[in-house]
This record gives sequence, C-alpha cells and structure tokens, in this order.
Amino acid sequence: MFAHNKRLQYTVRVGASNPGLANLMLEQFGGPQGELAAACRYFTQALAEDDPGRKDMLMDIATEELSHLEVIGTIVAMLNKGSKSRLSEAAESEAELYRTISGHGNSSHVTQVLYGGGPALTNSGGQLWNAGYIDSIGDPSADLRSNIAAEARAKIVYERLINLTDDAGVRDALGFLMTREIAHQQQFEKALYSMTPNFPPGKLPGDSRFTNVYFNMSQGEGDKRGPWNSDENFQFVTGGAAQQSVDGDGEASVALTSDEQSLLARLAERTASDPASDPMTGAELGMSGEMAAEKEAESLERDSPAR
Amino acid sequence: MFAHNKRLQYTVRVGASNPGLANLMLEQFGGPQGELAAACRYFTQALAEDDPGRKDMLMDIATEELSHLEVIGTIVAMLNKGSKSRLSEAAESEAELYRTISGHGNSSHVTQVLYGGGPALTNSGGQLWNAGYIDSIGDPSADLRSNIAAEARAKIVYERLINLTDDAGVRDALGFLMTREIAHQQQFEKALYSMTPNFPPGKLPGDSRFTNVYFNMSQGEGDKRGPWNSDENFQFVTGGAAQQSVDGDGEASVALTSDEQSLLARLAERTASDPASDPMTGAELGMSGEMAAEKEAESLERDSPAR
Amino acid sequence: MFAHNKRLQYTVRVGASNPGLANLMLEQFGGPQGELAAACRYFTQALAEDDPGRKDMLMDIATEELSHLEVIGTIVAMLNKGSKSRLSEAAESEAELYRTISGHGNSSHVTQVLYGGGPALTNSGGQLWNAGYIDSIGDPSADLRSNIAAEARAKIVYERLINLTDDAGVRDALGFLMTREIAHQQQFEKALYSMTPNFPPGKLPGDSRFTNVYFNMSQGEGDKRGPWNSDENFQFVTGGAAQQSVDGDGEASVALTSDEQSLLARLAERTASDPASDPMTGAELGMSGEMAAEKEAESLERDSPAR
Amino acid sequence: MFAHNKRLQYTVRVGASNPGLANLMLEQFGGPQGELAAACRYFTQALAEDDPGRKDMLMDIATEELSHLEVIGTIVAMLNKGSKSRLSEAAESEAELYRTISGHGNSSHVTQVLYGGGPALTNSGGQLWNAGYIDSIGDPSADLRSNIAAEARAKIVYERLINLTDDAGVRDALGFLMTREIAHQQQFEKALYSMTPNFPPGKLPGDSRFTNVYFNMSQGEGDKRGPWNSDENFQFVTGGAAQQSVDGDGEASVALTSDEQSLLARLAERTASDPASDPMTGAELGMSGEMAAEKEAESLERDSPAR
Amino acid sequence: MFAHNKRLQYTVRVGASNPGLANLMLEQFGGPQGELAAACRYFTQALAEDDPGRKDMLMDIATEELSHLEVIGTIVAMLNKGSKSRLSEAAESEAELYRTISGHGNSSHVTQVLYGGGPALTNSGGQLWNAGYIDSIGDPSADLRSNIAAEARAKIVYERLINLTDDAGVRDALGFLMTREIAHQQQFEKALYSMTPNFPPGKLPGDSRFTNVYFNMSQGEGDKRGPWNSDENFQFVTGGAAQQSVDGDGEASVALTSDEQSLLARLAERTASDPASDPMTGAELGMSGEMAAEKEAESLERDSPAR
Amino acid sequence: MFAHNKRLQYTVRVGASNPGLANLMLEQFGGPQGELAAACRYFTQALAEDDPGRKDMLMDIATEELSHLEVIGTIVAMLNKGSKSRLSEAAESEAELYRTISGHGNSSHVTQVLYGGGPALTNSGGQLWNAGYIDSIGDPSADLRSNIAAEARAKIVYERLINLTDDAGVRDALGFLMTREIAHQQQFEKALYSMTPNFPPGKLPGDSRFTNVYFNMSQGEGDKRGPWNSDENFQFVTGGAAQQSVDGDGEASVALTSDEQSLLARLAERTASDPASDPMTGAELGMSGEMAAEKEAESLERDSPAR
Repeated sequence: MFAHNKRLQYTVRVGASNPGLANLMLEQFGGPQGELAAACRYFTQALAEDDPGRKDMLMDIATEELSHLEVIGTIVAMLNKGSKSRLSEAAESEAELYRTISGHGNSSHVTQVLYGGGPALTNSGGQLWNAGYIDSIGDPSADLRSNIAAEARAKIVYERLINLTDDAGVRDALGFLMTREIAHQQQFEKALYSMTPNFPPGKLPGDSRFTNVYFNMSQGEGDKRGPWNSDENFQFVTGGAAQQSVDGDGEASVALTSDEQSLLARLAERTASDPASDPMTGAELGMSGEMAAEKEAESLERDSPAR
Repeated sequence: MFAHNKRLQYTVRVGASNPGLANLMLEQFGGPQGELAAACRYFTQALAEDDPGRKDMLMDIATEELSHLEVIGTIVAMLNKGSKSRLSEAAESEAELYRTISGHGNSSHVTQVLYGGGPALTNSGGQLWNAGYIDSIGDPSADLRSNIAAEARAKIVYERLINLTDDAGVRDALGFLMTREIAHQQQFEKALYSMTPNFPPGKLPGDSRFTNVYFNMSQGEGDKRGPWNSDENFQFVTGGAAQQSVDGDGEASVALTSDEQSLLARLAERTASDPASDPMTGAELGMSGEMAAEKEAESLERDSPAR
Repeated sequence: MFAHNKRLQYTVRVGASNPGLANLMLEQFGGPQGELAAACRYFTQALAEDDPGRKDMLMDIATEELSHLEVIGTIVAMLNKGSKSRLSEAAESEAELYRTISGHGNSSHVTQVLYGGGPALTNSGGQLWNAGYIDSIGDPSADLRSNIAAEARAKIVYERLINLTDDAGVRDALGFLMTREIAHQQQFEKALYSMTPNFPPGKLPGDSRFTNVYFNMSQGEGDKRGPWNSDENFQFVTGGAAQQSVDGDGEASVALTSDEQSLLARLAERTASDPASDPMTGAELGMSGEMAAEKEAESLERDSPAR
Repeated sequence: MFAHNKRLQYTVRVGASNPGLANLMLEQFGGPQGELAAACRYFTQALAEDDPGRKDMLMDIATEELSHLEVIGTIVAMLNKGSKSRLSEAAESEAELYRTISGHGNSSHVTQVLYGGGPALTNSGGQLWNAGYIDSIGDPSADLRSNIAAEARAKIVYERLINLTDDAGVRDALGFLMTREIAHQQQFEKALYSMTPNFPPGKLPGDSRFTNVYFNMSQGEGDKRGPWNSDENFQFVTGGAAQQSVDGDGEASVALTSDEQSLLARLAERTASDPASDPMTGAELGMSGEMAAEKEAESLERDSPAR
Repeated sequence: MFAHNKRLQYTVRVGASNPGLANLMLEQFGGPQGELAAACRYFTQALAEDDPGRKDMLMDIATEELSHLEVIGTIVAMLNKGSKSRLSEAAESEAELYRTISGHGNSSHVTQVLYGGGPALTNSGGQLWNAGYIDSIGDPSADLRSNIAAEARAKIVYERLINLTDDAGVRDALGFLMTREIAHQQQFEKALYSMTPNFPPGKLPGDSRFTNVYFNMSQGEGDKRGPWNSDENFQFVTGGAAQQSVDGDGEASVALTSDEQSLLARLAERTASDPASDPMTGAELGMSGEMAAEKEAESLERDSPAR
Repeated sequence: MFAHNKRLQYTVRVGASNPGLANLMLEQFGGPQGELAAACRYFTQALAEDDPGRKDMLMDIATEELSHLEVIGTIVAMLNKGSKSRLSEAAESEAELYRTISGHGNSSHVTQVLYGGGPALTNSGGQLWNAGYIDSIGDPSADLRSNIAAEARAKIVYERLINLTDDAGVRDALGFLMTREIAHQQQFEKALYSMTPNFPPGKLPGDSRFTNVYFNMSQGEGDKRGPWNSDENFQFVTGGAAQQSVDGDGEASVALTSDEQSLLARLAERTASDPASDPMTGAELGMSGEMAAEKEAESLERDSPAR
C-alpha cells in the first residue's frame, strides 16, 4: 500500500514563472524517459517478481520514482503558476494573451489552453504518454538490462535539461533527480550480476554455429573493425554470398493441402498481372496533352535502333 | 543505399498452414521487441553517429535486422498462405468460414479480415506498431545500453515462441533468429566497453551526496538486503523522515510578480471550496428514497454521543 | 513524497490459476477506467491545485488509487502465477503449450508471450494505455465533474467483472475496489458543491439567446419530449429552417488581402474541375469488357427519350 | 439518416488570415474536448440506447455537435485561406515562406506542410485524435455523468480560446459554441435525474463497511477537512495501520496445483539473485580509473569502525 | 536479404546547420507520407504477394524507399550536426542554449532534448510514427490504388518542403526524392492496369440497384452538377424521402429469444427515464442564487399565457 | 448544418443475437477502412476545398458515409442486444457468463466488459480508432486518388465480412454498404479526371533525368519484367553501381562553422570508441563459468596458426 507525505523528497524553489521552460520539463514528467514511465516500469515488474530481493528493490525504486514524478510535476506547476491565472481570469487584452501564449517558441500553448497550465502526461512536444514506452517482459535477465538502460537514458535527458536553464532552483532539483538515476543504475547493475549466469538471457542456448558470427552487411568506404567484430571475438563474415541463405537455398515454402493449392491457384488466376500488356493508365489519362506527346516521343526514341 | 537479394538470410520451411500460429509470430514482426523495432532503432542511431566504428557496426546490424524482418514476415505469409485464399475466394459456406476465423483462440480474425492474411505491422494482439517502442536518444553510452537490453528482450520473446510450436521448420528459423540476438548483444557489449569511461552516462557528474544512497522506500515484512543495497556498496537510508526533503523543508515555491500574485488570488477566490459547508450534491439527488433515509439515519447515529 | 508498505490495502486470495480471467482483470489495471488512469487523473490535478482543501483531497484519493492499482495488479499476478513458469520453463510439449495459450478465448496469449504473465499496462484486449484517457483540464468546476463521472464508470466496470467470476477471493477484492469508487464519487460530489457557484463552469457567462435552447435536430418517428427538452426548462426549436444559421446567413467568409486573393485565384484555376467534361477514368480502364459494354448500354438507355 | 444543408448553424465571419490562430482552434476540432469527440460520444451512445427519450436526446445533440464540428472546422479553413495558396503556389521566396511558416510560435507548420492548411483531426499541438478520448461505457447512470463532465470541459476550452483572440467574428462564433455546451450540460443533467435512482451507478450495491469511509492517505502539513471528508458525511480513517489491509493480513495468495508449484520453484531457482554476493558489474567496468579508485576508497571508509 | 552500401543513392550537400529546417524534414522521415511508411507499405505487400511480377516490383520499390529513408534521414542528421554537440557539450551559457532551442518557431526542442539531434521517427510536430499510416489490405486491386495515392501524396509533401528552403543542396536532394515518387506512381499505375479486370475491386459484384446512384445528401445554395453526378453517368437522387430507407421501412430489428426479451425488459425498467418528471439537477445546485432566481423567473414567464 | 432523420438509409434486420459477429462488424465502424474514417476523410476535405463542384460532392458523400456509420453501428447494436442485458442484469451464474464472454474466439469480451455491448470506435481487435487513418493532405490531385483507393479498400473489407456471415439480414445490409463504395469510387474517379492535368500531382515538375527510371533494386531468381518496368515505358537500371550515388559521390556533407567544428571534435573525442581495445563486458561477467571457459578456448583456437 502507498502512503503520501506532503513534504517533497527534494525542495523545489523556482525563480520565476516561465511556461516555456515548464513545457520542456514535461519531457521528464510525461515523456518516454520520464518519471511516470520509470515508476510504471519498476512497479509492474515488482508485482510479478518472485525473487524476494529483487521484488523489494523494484518496489523501493518504483516508490522513489513516484516521489520524483511529484518533484518534476511540482516544478512544472510552479513554472506555470503565474501564467495559469492570466488565461483563466483573462487579465490582459486578447491580443496580448495570444502573443504570450504563442511566443514561447515551443508547444506551451497546448499546456495552457488544453491543460490550464497543469502538468500534463505528455512529452515536451505534446505527444500523449503511452504504455509502449514500458518494455518490461517478465524475465529478470532482460528486465534488469532494460532498467539499466532506462536509467542511463533518463540521466542524459536530465543533463540536457540542466544545460538549458539558468534558474538556480530548477537546476538544483534537476541535479538531484539526475543523480538518483545514477544511483538506480548502479543498484540494477548489482542486481543483474547477483543472478548467475545471466547471459545469454533466458533458458534456451543459442545455435553455436551463429552465436559468434558477425555479418558485415553494410559495405563500402567506411568499413571498420573493432572489438565488436574483431577476429578474436567473432567470426567475421563478409560478402553477399556468404551472408545469405546461410543454411540452405534461402527459399520459403509451406506444405499446403490440395484444397489449399487449388484455391490459391484460383486466387492467382483472378488477380494475375499480364507482363506482356502495355495498358493505358490513370496517370496517362491525367497528363496534359503536351506531356503525353513528349512521353510518346520519348518512347519512340527509346525504341529506335540507334539508341 | 540498400539492395535486396531474393534469397532469404535463412531458409523458411513451414510444415502446414496455421493462421493462429501466424498471429503469434506477428509479435516479432510488428511487436515492440520485433525486428522492425530493432532495424529502426539501429538505423536511426547509425545516421546520427559520428564515431566511424560504431556507425559501421550500427548499419551492419540494422541491415541484418531488416533481413530478419523479411524472414519472420515470410513465416507469417507462409502460415497464412492456405487460409488467405479461403476468405477471398469464399470457398466455403459462410458459417464454416466464420467458425474457422473465430476459432483460433486469438486475434487472427483481424489479420484475416483487415490484412487479408498478409503480415501486419501489429503485435500478436493487433496493437499497431508505434515509434514509442524505439528509445534511441543520441548518446552512445545510453543507446548502447538500450541496444543490449533490446537484444536481451528479443531473445526471450523468440524463446517463448519456440516453446509454443512443434512445426520443425518454424522452430528452426526461429532458432536462427534467436541466436542472432545473442550475437548482437555481445557486439553491442563490446562497443559499449570500448568507449571509456562510459559510466555515468553523459558528461555531468552526479551530486556525490546522493550517488550512492539507497532509499528503502517500501517497508514492512519482505524487506531484503543484497548487493544492490548492501552497506558495502550503498549508503542505506530507511525511515520516512530520513528520506523526505533530504535537502531542506520539502516545500515548493515560486517567486511571482505582484501582478501574478493578485491574479492568482482572484482565481483562488473565484474557485474556493467552502470547508464549512455541507452541500446537497448530485449523488444525493440521485439516491433512492430508501437509501437517502438510511444515510440520514447513519449520519444522525454518527453524531450521537454514544458512538 | 510517497512511501510504500508491503501489506496490501485489501487482502488478495485467489482460488486458482486462470490466465483468461487475469486478462479480463487488466481492464481495471491498464484500461481506460482502470486504476492507473484514476491515480494519474487525481495526482496531476493535485499538483496544479491551489485550493488547500481540494489539493489535500485529490492527493488522498490519488494515493488510494495507487494502492488499488497494486491490489488489482496483484490479482493479475496471482492468476498468472501458475502459467507463467509453464512457458518460461517449457514444461510441456509445444503443442500442449500452444493449445493452452490459444485456448482462453481472449487475448491472454499477448500477456503470456509478450509480458511473461506480468500485469501489463494494457486493457483486456491488449490496447496500450495512453494519456488520452485522462481528461483533467485544470479547472475545478470541470475536473470535479470529470472525476465524478470517472468514478461512476469505474464502478460499472468493476460490477461487470464481478458478474464474470465465481472465484470467491477475486470477487471479494473486486467488491472492495468497487465500493471505494462509490465512496470517492461521493467525496468529489461534496467537493464540487462546496465551491459556489460552480455552474456554468468557468467565468464567462453564456449568450442568453442560446443558453436554454433545445434544437430538435433528429426528427421522425421516435421524437420524444421529457424534462431535458420540456417547455418548462427549454425553448424547444424544431424544423430545419429555425435551426440553421440562427444568427445570420450561415455563410462563411474571411477578409483577404488582395495578394491573398490573387494567389487563391491562381490555385483555384490550376485545380479547377470541369463540370462540363465527361472524362474517361481509371475505373473504366479497369472494367472487364463485358461490364464496360453494359455500362455503355445503360448510359445510352438513360439518354433515350422514353426514360 | 443524416442530411446536410449548406448553410452553417452559425455564421462565420473571419477578420483576417491567421494560421497561428487557426492552429489554436484545432483544439476544438480534433482535440480531446473538441466537437468530433462530442459527436462520436453521443452518437455511439444513441445507437445502443434503449430508452426512447434518452435515445432521441442523444441523437439530437450528436447531430448538433456535428454541425458545430462544421462551424469550428470552417473557422480553421477561413483562417488558413490566405496562407494555403502561398505554399502551394510558392508565391514568395523560399526563405520568406520558411520564416512565415516557422514564425507562429506554435505548430502551424504541421498544418501547413502536412495538411495543406485544411482542418486536421489533431489537437493544437498536432497530436492525432484517438478514440481513447471517448469514455462511453453503455450504462446511462455513468454515461450521462460523463456527458455532463465533457460539456463542462468543452465550455472551459472555448472560454480560453475566446480569451485568446480579438478577431470579432471568431469570438462571436466561439461564443455561440461555448453557450451551446452550457445548454447541453443542462439537458444531460435533466436526463440523468429523470432516471431514478441513479446513484450508486449500476445495479450492485457497495459493501456498506467501506461506502462512507474516507482514507486520509496523504499526510503532513496541509491536511484539511471539509464536507468531502467531514465526520458528518464520512467515517474519517487516518494513520497507516488503520488504512492498510483493512480486511485481513494484506497478503496475496493463490492456490496452485503441485505441478505449478514445482515449476515455479524451478523458475525461482534458475533466476535467483544471490544476496550474499558482491558482483563486479557493467557500471564498474565502465567507470574511469579515477572514479573506480574513489569508489573503492569510499567503500573502505564505510567499512571502517569509526563510521 | 538486404545489403547496404555506404554510398547514398543521392548525394547530400547541406549548406549550413539549421535545426528548425531539420525538424520540417522529419515530415518525410517519420511522418505519415514519409519514407518509412512507404518502405513498410510495399515491403509488407511484397511478402504476401503471389503474383511474381508484382512481388518483384514491390520489393524493388520497397528497397528504393529504404534508400530514400537513408537520404532524408541523412539530411536531418547533417542539419543538426552543428547544434547536436552544442547541447551535449554545454558549450554556451544556459540562457543562450535555451534561447537557441526555443527559437526555431517549431518543435525542434523535442528533437534536441529527447533525441539528441538524431533523426526521430516522428513527423515534424513530434507525433510518433504508427502503423495506422499503412493501409495495405492484401488485395492487389485495392493495394495498388493505395500505392498510387500514397505516391501522389508524398510528391506533394516534397513539393511543399522544396518551397520552404533555399539551401541549394537540400533542394537538390529533395528534388530527386520528389521525382522518384512520380516514377513510382507510374510504375504502380502500369501494374494496376496490367491486371484485368481490376474494377470493381475484389470478386463480389455490387448490387446493380445502387451501383450507379448518386445521393445528393448535402443540399442548399452551392449544389453543383458535374461528371461525378451527371445524368449520363449516374442516377441522381435528391430529396430526403428518396434517399432514406431506400429498401424498406428504415427500421432496425433483431429477433431475440424470449429470455433475451425479458432480460432486456428488466434492464429497460431499471434504467428508464421519466419523461413526466422535472427533477432538480446538479446544475441547479451549482448555480449562484441570482442565476437560479433568473431562471425561475424565466420559466414562469414561459408558462404565462401571453407568450 | 447536419440534420438527422430517424429512418435509416437502409433497413437492418438481424436474425439473432451474436456478439462474436458484432465484433467483426466493428471493423467497418471503428476500423481503418470503416465508415467513421470515410466520413472524416471527405468532411475535412470538403471544409477546405475551394472548387464548388468538388466541395459539393465531398459533402454529399461525407453525409452519406455518416449515414452508413449509423447503419453499421446499428447492426452492431442489434447483434449485441441480447447479450448486453445478460451482463448488466447478471442473469446467469458467473461461471456461465464467463464462458459466454470468453468463448467467441475473438475480442468480444472487450466490447462487452468495457463498452457494455455498445458499438465502440475500435476495429474488430479492439485497437482504438485514430486520425492517422485519414490521409487527406489538401491537394485535390492527391486527395481524390486517396479517396479512390479508400473506397476500393472498404469494398474489399465489406466483401470479406459478407463471406463470413449467413445471417441474411446482415448480408443484405452489408451488400448495400459494399455497393455504395463502388458508386463512390466511380464518383471520385470522375472528379479526378475532370481536373486536367492531374498528373504529376501538384505544380512542380519532376527532374526529367529520373522521372522514367526503374531501379531494379531487388535482384536474384524471381526478377521479372512487365509493363511497370518495360523498356517501352521506363529506363531500366540494374546493378549496384548504376543505382547508387546517381548524381555524385554519394557522400553526405554539411558546412559547419569553426565553432561547430571544434564542439563536434570535443564530442567525438569524449565518446570515441577504441578499435584496438578488447574490453571485458557485461555479457562476459554474466556468463556461467563453463560458458566463459568455452569461449576462451574458442578464442585461443581461432588465434592458432592452423586455422
């Protein structure tokens, strides 16, 4: 069960109203790397987890992320505090309000008109949060790696936001939130490696013929070697022929019943294209006379022996 | 530039038509852990990457994932080959067709009616693929970790699909695809650790007061210790008071101009709730007479001294 | 700040594994009327609210909804507990597993394959949760009404779920959750009516010519009168002429600059349709000879004087 | 059946081209509180409704909302009329066009480039309309409350848009649309209360132990009392212990078969974390030498007796 | 199988960094008419196609579209090259960076903060790409028409983008991409008409009573005739009566079992509205005293005989 | 302005309750090829259209599609009529209800539990309708082609639904709806070709070097020729070298300022990968001892001269 205490986990001191900045902050409220995504990610994993240690850790961190969601949402609310009443009380002339709301160089008009200045579960561009942001799949060797990566991404987005504001109070709170992502990443790393073995993920082993192969599928100037495709670590395969149909003829087949075969033949016949035709088309109907004439000429020319 | 060769990277030999199984396979065609997501993930990273080695590797693997998308999509097409013509040629009685299409115990009716049996960019439940599945953010220390995690997840989903079919040809091809995820994960790991340092991600250091703190936010029976919150590795903080407002009073504030303050006051006054009122409400209007009477009685009782 | 206690708000005692039922329960976990939507709805309102009473109430209820999210998610996890390991440990033959996962008559295959049996933030049909479910707009006279309605809807969905299971433990927990929606609705009703006036919502009054008009726009057999369009309460307007262009000529106009006018003329000319033409079309090109002949005949017939 | 008359329900007289304002107007065309959402909401309810009075009213209002959709869409088209041809006829230098399209301080570039200036089914930030905005669930005691709330929200958004423009014609038409939301709200209110009883919604009664309980789940400075949690109306429960596991031990359980139990044990063993380990992790591999040394030192210090 | 060559299909020479323009370009990278949509469209059709000629053509064009995706994505990456490092290296003061990122008059802040300047699979307004953009349904007479239309739309969007930039290198590459859409349209046209007959699409013929009818459903000033509704081509039906219930009484009915009938009656009774009531409502509870008095007066007046 | 008449455009006579069939019908109610998409498509085009003939036609057809939406929605409502009250009145035992709702072999449980049996704006798999289904872009040469294609697709989906039911009344109504798609397609075709020229779409001509080129990008066994790539119609280009970098060196470049260059260098240096390293990775940390040993051996073997 959750309980709430009205004191924030970290104090929020905003220097001045700034709806444009508020909007940027939404990135970590309702954006893909934001705190709602983080909280949902760990909370849903915790509910399904059976290992007592991981379950406890996941719920600890999920709860902290909810507390961070509160901090970042409070920053948004504070930054919008001044402008919120402006629109609802219609304190200024309409033209002035319009200029204010359209002049932040970002999508803050959405936040103001649609959400009344409250923190919205969208990213900074107004894209609605959706659960596709959460990649939990219920296997700890995969989910812990997903969590490590998610913390790394969130850390970077906080870093970018810090670089974008000189409001000391906002920077201070963002600094705390960013730091906690570093701490969480370390915690998930410890949890991953305290489960042994954790690679390859899951239970089924790979097919040893292909586990250590590197296919050099992008070729040309710019081909590089490194530890990720070195001969020490991988079997480096290059050249089209060696990479395709690595196991047989590279054809696709399915065994059909005779009923299925005859139905398929019927469908094929009904929808067959005629390679020998040269049909008039809608495009030609739609050309101007001039263009059609040109095209005709061009086609004649192409047929002429001298070409 | 891409080129295509008509031979598949891996041969597909399907044992029999099976639209229900085809639908499950969509999980790795148009699902969140599927091959389109993988290809888009690495391809978009490759375009923005400036490190020559990583750029080459990302494009190599993106191209391979496109080739895998072709393999899994071909499996879907083969499994649907028999039933596809059944619906379009209306070969059976309607009642029989209805039974067929509704009887696979999953959402294969969508694939048949809407997509005509072709491979659709949805997951196995019909959810449309969306770019929220892709978590690239343009920083290699984060993106490589995301890629490692993505490969781990894809490996698990293939493992689950393998466990669900006894069609030998399908199992064989799925085995190849699963194995390649293992190989890719290793390649991304090598690339991550050949960039040093890569932790913490990005450039800004964390605030050392909070980098190694573990907040024990979920309490009660079930609290566990482990390397992820051990005293060796972390400063373990427990108890509500120690966790909240770690830096000050935990209050939120914003400096408003006097104009903003007076507008806010106007708004507050206009929308104030009256804590001393006991208003009649819509719910009470909507109760049956009997229920309203009961409620009245209950309220009287609560007021009575004996309670 | 949030804290978590490992004891649930309500005890969950599930009678037996049942992944099909687990899937139905997702409706209130990650569905539009579910607990995540409820928690997010009240939490985001609380952050932006300035009235101390409403702010406190919204946070109280948001926190309780998070605790309900935990209860319903735990029900899902318990119902899937048995089947979860079946797939990951591949305990049965593949054919048997396939039958199990495809045989629940609903989308539980998604939950098993994609989410490994964990509670997913989707509805019971696999649709990803999205923030479009949340309709907070930052005005208390609107938001409280939205909350009242949301509680009513959630109550109904719980009622339907209760009607669908005979697992006594699940019914018991669902009954608690359903009841709390009733309690919350009453609380929001009290809060709405303790703010006076709260109708019409917002600050601007309506245009008195149209505030009490009822337009009878759907006509024919089945037209009914009632308090919602009675003469006592509303000015009942019927008949096409009286309902259209209630204020003028019903035309649309915009004052354009002369530059804009000439550009628009150029665009119009370039894309004009010729009403006097009878062009050959792609449809005609695509008809079979027989059909084209029929069509020709038909057209002749239509032109004939006798028609 | 629907019919259309070319005269608008309300005359639209736009003062001048203004694509930035056009974009704001999209909020009520393709936004969550807009007219398409309203029309779809009432229309789908009408189709399923069996009560003759409500069915008629829902269709009346749905039809009017379609007529409003036409009015607001026409406003958008008029505001874009001048700029639409500018882009398609490429009347100005490219640099000038770029400045024009990028200078409205909102997302009007999307409307221009992607939709050619036509009214798009997106909100003012470009978010695609989706049916998650519609919360009809097929129970009149819930749906009518949802409709009342929806009208309240739409009224507020119109009020905000009116406050943002000084184009007299646009304000006039918006005023009409806003007023009709007030009228509709009153109609739905009458319909709700003419169905008795309508509270609690649905058929199942609540559990009387919890129907009138208020859980004070958010605590600390700022706790308030009011009619929504007064002792007259509710049983006020506060303090963690009283709120959790209100019915038993707050534990979750499921009765598993012995097969399920042994499979679960196998899974647990395979994925167990080792609480006694202190594994090397990827984060440590990724640290710079300096940071790793510091960390080591710190850990030693923590172990020292003086701490 | 796909292979990749590091040389682009068309050379990209960008004149200068321009993140605002980069954002506009996303329209054809991750927008609905963009290259990812095109590639996915033809690729999924190719996989399911059985006609050898069409299958080959679809794969040829799909592969080219992937190569175009690389070209447009590279343009985005080049345009962002300069600004990308600015944010990650925090080279300027925060205030300056904020001005830069908020000053492009479009949503480029999303691209910078969230995606680090890399090409994102969103449109120019930040809307995530989703597979609903792809309308393949697995019937060639429909899919080829969809492809023709898709190429026409993509051509127009490229034309608009060309009109918006004076960067010669960007214009040059966009010109190539635009031209290829024209070429592809012609190819799909040829393929459509080489399948005969292709109209009406599919196998079932239409009902001849309604195949050539034109219903004039929008009436009033502005009614026009043209080849699309001329008497030569269509049977023109006008007037409400002639258009509704063209086949019977226009009623809806379903044969119910007697059990179903009695249940329906129970439901109807429980939720009946009372047309004769005039209930007090929530709206009235919420009015100010003044407004309620006015309303009362108004109602009395309406009842007075003189009205 | 719209008006509604209670008689349907086509009579609906449903033979018996059938919630499973109801769900399939949703494909044309709230699916991508359904009537809401059609109505929205033509309605939004009509609002922005300036050509009087097309504007009238678009509004005629939009209005008819709304009337079709009513017909198909009514079919859904009738098919669900019997089962709707079953759930809300809880007429049967829970186990029986559960069997009923889970036994239709498709997603009808969503419709019943979430939407109470009303027609929902989802496709037959429960995917929420979204405006990404609508591809109007405000250019008639493109939009009319899109409309032609949309009608073709809708015709096919109706054909498939007809093939799936033997309820005579449902088949009859579906037959009418299918036929009207044929009629509309013909109307849009006439409108397209009455605008001359209409190809290429828009105003800018293509680059004549590439307008008639066919790139043979998918090679290998299965390469076919036909009118879509014949020498008569197109310049057929094959072979990798001839297809890539058709205009120059195929490189990408951007002119950067010197500041940008030095920042980029800083970023590159900070995130450089070291191709000469062979770092220990997380994957290796995560392997079992046995696997790590094997890997080591394998690597030694690869280094041995005999290989």
